[in-house]
Amino acid sequence: MCFNKKFIFRANVSNILLVTIKKNVKQFLGLKSLMSTFVFLFIVNVTFSQENDRLLSRQLAEIAVLTDQNKITDEAIKAAKKALIDDFGVSFAGFYSPGVQEVLDQEKYFGGTSQATVWIDGTMLAAPDAAFVNSVFIHALDLDDIHIPSITHITSVVVPAAFAVGQEQNATGREVLEAIILGIEISGRLGREYHARKTHGAFLPTSIIGGFGATAASCRLLGLSVEQTMDAFGIFYAHASGNRQALIDNTLTKRIQPAIASRAGVVSAYFAQKGISGPHHIFLSKRGLFCIYGGEAEPSPTYKTDIDGKRDHFEIEQLAFKKYACCGAGHPAIEAAIELAERNKISLKDIDNIEIFVGIGGLVGVPWNPSSENLHVAAQFCAPYEVVSAIKNKRFGPAEITNKMIEEDFEVSEISKKVIIRDRPEGRKQKVVITLKDGTVLENDKNIHEKFFTKDYMSYNDIIKKFRGNLSFSELISDDRANLLLKGIEEIQDEININDFVDEHLKIMNI
Amino acid sequence: MCFNKKFIFRANVSNILLVTIKKNVKQFLGLKSLMSTFVFLFIVNVTFSQENDRLLSRQLAEIAVLTDQNKITDEAIKAAKKALIDDFGVSFAGFYSPGVQEVLDQEKYFGGTSQATVWIDGTMLAAPDAAFVNSVFIHALDLDDIHIPSITHITSVVVPAAFAVGQEQNATGREVLEAIILGIEISGRLGREYHARKTHGAFLPTSIIGGFGATAASCRLLGLSVEQTMDAFGIFYAHASGNRQALIDNTLTKRIQPAIASRAGVVSAYFAQKGISGPHHIFLSKRGLFCIYGGEAEPSPTYKTDIDGKRDHFEIEQLAFKKYACCGAGHPAIEAAIELAERNKISLKDIDNIEIFVGIGGLVGVPWNPSSENLHVAAQFCAPYEVVSAIKNKRFGPAEITNKMIEEDFEVSEISKKVIIRDRPEGRKQKVVITLKDGTVLENDKNIHEKFFTKDYMSYNDIIKKFRGNLSFSELISDDRANLLLKGIEEIQDEININDFVDEHLKIMNI
Repeated sequence: MCFNKKFIFRANVSNILLVTIKKNVKQFLGLKSLMSTFVFLFIVNVTFSQENDRLLSRQLAEIAVLTDQNKITDEAIKAAKKALIDDFGVSFAGFYSPGVQEVLDQEKYFGGTSQATVWIDGTMLAAPDAAFVNSVFIHALDLDDIHIPSITHITSVVVPAAFAVGQEQNATGREVLEAIILGIEISGRLGREYHARKTHGAFLPTSIIGGFGATAASCRLLGLSVEQTMDAFGIFYAHASGNRQALIDNTLTKRIQPAIASRAGVVSAYFAQKGISGPHHIFLSKRGLFCIYGGEAEPSPTYKTDIDGKRDHFEIEQLAFKKYACCGAGHPAIEAAIELAERNKISLKDIDNIEIFVGIGGLVGVPWNPSSENLHVAAQFCAPYEVVSAIKNKRFGPAEITNKMIEEDFEVSEISKKVIIRDRPEGRKQKVVITLKDGTVLENDKNIHEKFFTKDYMSYNDIIKKFRGNLSFSELISDDRANLLLKGIEEIQDEININDFVDEHLKIMNI
Repeated sequence: MCFNKKFIFRANVSNILLVTIKKNVKQFLGLKSLMSTFVFLFIVNVTFSQENDRLLSRQLAEIAVLTDQNKITDEAIKAAKKALIDDFGVSFAGFYSPGVQEVLDQEKYFGGTSQATVWIDGTMLAAPDAAFVNSVFIHALDLDDIHIPSITHITSVVVPAAFAVGQEQNATGREVLEAIILGIEISGRLGREYHARKTHGAFLPTSIIGGFGATAASCRLLGLSVEQTMDAFGIFYAHASGNRQALIDNTLTKRIQPAIASRAGVVSAYFAQKGISGPHHIFLSKRGLFCIYGGEAEPSPTYKTDIDGKRDHFEIEQLAFKKYACCGAGHPAIEAAIELAERNKISLKDIDNIEIFVGIGGLVGVPWNPSSENLHVAAQFCAPYEVVSAIKNKRFGPAEITNKMIEEDFEVSEISKKVIIRDRPEGRKQKVVITLKDGTVLENDKNIHEKFFTKDYMSYNDIIKKFRGNLSFSELISDDRANLLLKGIEEIQDEININDFVDEHLKIMNI
């Protein structure tokens, strides 16, 4: 049973009830009276919790579809553009990475009405399917942004949905931006609480929580009512899926999980528009999101404010951007390795051995296995490989994790196999210790919390630099077109029809 | 942590290990030795459990794609045909029920390559989308069959997937039948264990377990390898969704949840064919199906034999068929009410009051609410309404739960509101007590286990009768065409191309 009792007692009405019961106990002190008070409280508890659940669904729906244009701040708009720059950059870089063309080919084979554009490729598909493929592009290299308070790749789910429905609806650029901001707002608020309950072990919050954001963005662009949006949340809840095993097993399925949620969010909004009713008691009830996807964990202390509280920022302002094409948990060791290598002008042939303190096991603390089935995935989630490649190349980007590069760079692969993995010495610090052949021992450490998971990790200029690097790696568009795309994003709020933006900047292969 | 330790110790290899550890303890009795044995066992435990998980995925994949045609028994073929007769019947009856045309319209709007037929309507869509819509047809009235050992509506997930992929592949009728049988075999085996762990409270096993069956059937028809089928299971696992809240809130989303799984199963198979890799440790691992969708419940005592044991029947032979258009949990009370009404020639105007003993609360033990948003759904999951309607009409079929009928039959609605709901008197018996205006008290009870949830509840002739009733209710085809459809199903294994069967019998509106 997962009635979120703590929440009940936190609510104002419940506080009054609590005073009442205390009075009852003091006045009567009879067992019968006490019992009936408990029974009364239990009934109120259940009923009240159910009502709160519906209320929460309504509040989130209201934020999604009723938030006035004028309430969207310049900071939020700026943050959305930053996210778009990064999303398009990683999409170009990921376009030819393993699994992506296969997914695209399959979706083309399934076909669909021309409603929205598959970026870069230019094919038109039905809105849900375009959202699906574009989401795969964004998440293909795992190089997309992270919403810090929920540790989710939110934009990979929300942005493709907003673009697809925006195109189908001939929305303006400004409307698409707003849908993205409010979609991320919904996922961000739910994701804060989901994260706070420490429920990140098995289910994949990016998909499960992110899908509500894709739904919210789609509902706003479709102009749905609050009631319809609540239905759409309920319909999406029936789709909520995604798990970490796809990642643990180093499979390409990892790359399509946000896409499954993005597609489902779009479909849920259209179904709700048609009149399909969805459940409204989907967050707090005993069959609700937090309970069945959250291991029945209790609400976090910040529960109320995190989900439906007023605040002075939009969740989209909490995005952090990745510098390296790997798990965020690999960033500190890579950074430490690059600093060491640059400072000491180390080349791999000088090295006798490498120890890394990243924690044994888990996702990245695993030995390098060059016979892995999905080299591309294995390399980017393996700290030994990341560190050795970083020492050699002074970076760890898309170019370092192509299957071709991994297979051909025999030197990196061989040294990676010999890296010794140890537990982290203290707190969450990651450390790299390099012993050179001449006996010199060099070491450097980085704290994962200091800046790697903060929104200030990359400056606007860093993001532009990453964007240019990704586009250059992709070899898909010229520097001139890249500059036009950047300019297009900066002025996207002025687009009368989002299709114009997509036609001009994102249809690459068809032209 | 959910490593299924019991299972480990049950396995043969583990028994040998157990002997080894006992010897160790006896021989050394030193703390260090004991400790290292535990560490050894823990590592073996984890590794072995992971290996078993992959093995299980492999075994299920082998059953799905390697089972020889000749091993499919006549009984299984017969059972499959019985299921098809029932599935098509309920599809016709459900075609115009709330939500169905809305879903169909939306899917037409999204469009797709002409690969498979939307039954009755005749529109061609891409295979996954045709599977989706046809699944909605089957499950629209909740009148479709139940796989008893897992309590799932398996065919609503597996049959549409097999037909869609079968059409896209120009498979023979026999191949489609076999894919259905083996798809249900996979879901049935997994579902037995899922059910045995009593994990049916929140997630919806029909969708979560059923989808593996749709995947298996699709893989077989696509001619995938065992390895590819394991990938497909992993890809489907990333889609596994569905919950009971959609039902508790009386929403139309209930009707589309099996369809979500059916579609996902088809997509997963095609993606695996393209080379998308999926996780293989998806059932027993700590992020696996039984653990994260099963509340970390321990394996059931029959675990091994239920999932990968040899057996003398196919799971499809375990299907039971519904007589009434409602939850299985309402069947005994309805049956008791009809018997009482027929035996005593009762009409509603003679009745003073009705008490039913079905259990207060739960799904069906709720008061009748004539202002419910989804009357159609509310009526069929409300025991008071079911019983009163059954007393009046001596049946409870599709005709009794159309919104029109519910709104117009004021008498049934009014009396239903006054029915008194009580807990069941003993065991799982349901009882109906009718007090007539002359003071006579009539009562009758039925045990839910006696025959309602057995495969013998309905005879072959009962199923034909139900089929004819459903077709007649639908007013979509003549008796002659209904007879041809029946004959077509009886001879379906002789079809050289399943498209011929579908064209001849299931394209109704287009002709």
